[in-house]
Amino acid sequence: MTAELLTQKRRFELEKFVTCGGAAIQDVAVGYETYGQLDAAGGNAILVPHYFSGTSHAAGRYRADDPQPGYWDAIIGPGKAVDTDRFFVISIDSLVNLNVGDETVVTTGPASLDPATGRPYGMSFPAVAIGDFVRVQKALLESLGISRLHAVMGPSMGGLQTFEWAATYPECVGRIIPVIATPHFGGWLTGWLSLWAQPIRLDPLWKQGAYDSAPPLSGLEASLRLITLNALHSHWVDEGAGRALAPGGVAGDIASEPYAIERALTIGAQDRAKKSDANHLLYLVRANQSFIPGQGAGAKTLEEGFARIRAPTLMLHAPDDQVFLAEWVEKSIAALRENGVTVETGEILGPYGHYNGIMRIGDCSEQIAKFLAREF
Amino acid sequence: MTAELLTQKRRFELEKFVTCGGAAIQDVAVGYETYGQLDAAGGNAILVPHYFSGTSHAAGRYRADDPQPGYWDAIIGPGKAVDTDRFFVISIDSLVNLNVGDETVVTTGPASLDPATGRPYGMSFPAVAIGDFVRVQKALLESLGISRLHAVMGPSMGGLQTFEWAATYPECVGRIIPVIATPHFGGWLTGWLSLWAQPIRLDPLWKQGAYDSAPPLSGLEASLRLITLNALHSHWVDEGAGRALAPGGVAGDIASEPYAIERALTIGAQDRAKKSDANHLLYLVRANQSFIPGQGAGAKTLEEGFARIRAPTLMLHAPDDQVFLAEWVEKSIAALRENGVTVETGEILGPYGHYNGIMRIGDCSEQIAKFLAREF
Repeated sequence: MTAELLTQKRRFELEKFVTCGGAAIQDVAVGYETYGQLDAAGGNAILVPHYFSGTSHAAGRYRADDPQPGYWDAIIGPGKAVDTDRFFVISIDSLVNLNVGDETVVTTGPASLDPATGRPYGMSFPAVAIGDFVRVQKALLESLGISRLHAVMGPSMGGLQTFEWAATYPECVGRIIPVIATPHFGGWLTGWLSLWAQPIRLDPLWKQGAYDSAPPLSGLEASLRLITLNALHSHWVDEGAGRALAPGGVAGDIASEPYAIERALTIGAQDRAKKSDANHLLYLVRANQSFIPGQGAGAKTLEEGFARIRAPTLMLHAPDDQVFLAEWVEKSIAALRENGVTVETGEILGPYGHYNGIMRIGDCSEQIAKFLAREF
Repeated sequence: MTAELLTQKRRFELEKFVTCGGAAIQDVAVGYETYGQLDAAGGNAILVPHYFSGTSHAAGRYRADDPQPGYWDAIIGPGKAVDTDRFFVISIDSLVNLNVGDETVVTTGPASLDPATGRPYGMSFPAVAIGDFVRVQKALLESLGISRLHAVMGPSMGGLQTFEWAATYPECVGRIIPVIATPHFGGWLTGWLSLWAQPIRLDPLWKQGAYDSAPPLSGLEASLRLITLNALHSHWVDEGAGRALAPGGVAGDIASEPYAIERALTIGAQDRAKKSDANHLLYLVRANQSFIPGQGAGAKTLEEGFARIRAPTLMLHAPDDQVFLAEWVEKSIAALRENGVTVETGEILGPYGHYNGIMRIGDCSEQIAKFLAREF
């Protein structure tokens, strides 16, 4: 038995932040959590950026009786693959984090108050890149006295950030573990990301982003339903609700949504929509659509970005992933190897499609532990 | 060189129609096209039901200078796989056909005028099943003196109708060729179909179906964008627009949709939305969600429906299909074989995912021709 990991949210502030695109933002604040202790040399830090709809609650509990721990608790903690008896793990809320309404999340984005007007930025908030999320992380690490990371690891959008770290700050990264993520994605994902945003744009309460007390909750819920199904897999649905009607559902009532799977998607999305912000979702979509590793260092193409990467890489992917397709993962692996980078790979199996990278990460514990222990 | 196939739309009317669910509809009308000649014995007829967003324009041109022929022109015509020098081919617009605004389409659905009120039915139109589409087809064939079909063949929703024919009217069907379709679909497709409908429900102009002169075009366009991407495949997108910006597209403008793939989806959907009806789309979604073969004969389960099927079957599917998944196709093949039905199978390859069943059907010409010629 290992001890229960307890954590708390901390807050990091930057008076002024300049984006990769050159825009200045005043009073940036993000939340972060740490697990384990930084050693005297400051050399045992592992950074864990989160996924699209995730937060910096990567592991542990705030209180011993919290019903759920952080999302990667299966691998982060005392004696686990990312052993917090040995490593100092740090996880940081992104800019434009989706979960603005979650009291444990600290972020800056279009829902934040513009100091110049005292009202939410809305669409006047500048576009931010995944490279900007990483710039904020770099500033926080510097404030903690960490100049080099033992590793950067994260799932999905967090995995894209591992590539950004390796390309923009190659001298600061010992190794990376991108999980269910590949920068070599095609226009197919650009299109799907656009469709994720579409229901919000359709909601008349969105008002081109200028909502305040009456947010576009219906559109946001609809977006979250679509994101959820896109990130899952038929195996999960078919083994669960299947084609059954929900209790009381009437197939002949066309205006209703009578099926169990529809009901399940709706309930999940309603819960999450209450804590989420529609504009933040749109900003996240664009940050992912426009991602190229090394964008923080001025890279303009995938090739340019990949040419900067030197960090040994453990690339874990889910073969059934419908968001970051297996064939795109192969392209990133090939590009790294062509550039002489050491690449290990592993598969994450299970019924959850893309979400296997969250739900089944524990299955990769041994491979992750070994990779973190390797000498390069 | 074969002669150019010319065709025209005809109209079939039923004064009264009773649905599988027991609802009566007055003054049902549907359009149909025929290719070739019915022989004296009335035994050379092949029925071709259409797909979700399709029409009865399966082959040929209305005028020699039409830019495009019908959707399966590659296999239907003089000297082609479905040889109209030998067979009498008939294709019929479904009830609640999506393309109400297309002048060549005749259909009855929620956009039709309710004779009782003189206004569109809207949601007061009864729910219709795929079994109802087939009932209308049966009535038309009887009016033409056709009591037995040499074959029923169709793609996607048209493929589901081949199973309905074989299960509800087993004595009337010589063989079936379901293409990119399987009744053994899971809750995954139930969920996706729900998401296809979601943008329409979000559009305030939808008004629970009670729109008239101001239809919910934005929601309908958004639905068509989603349906299109769902029915395609990454290979098509990646080989086309990829991740490029459209001319004039600015990634930093979050309120816009700057990518080439977004632009392509929008243009296609806008064109189609003008001819389509939002309520009809919702009725089609439900008809597909609730499909079980043999529903017209009272079957309540897939097993019950499949137990009625005797028709030799050529099942053609696209391995990359993201709508009707390959593993579901395998289940239908297994169920037919367990019941002693003769099943041939074939794959349709290409970059179009589900749409390979339309775009690449010509590749299956030889297999289709041989199957139609087989003695059973």
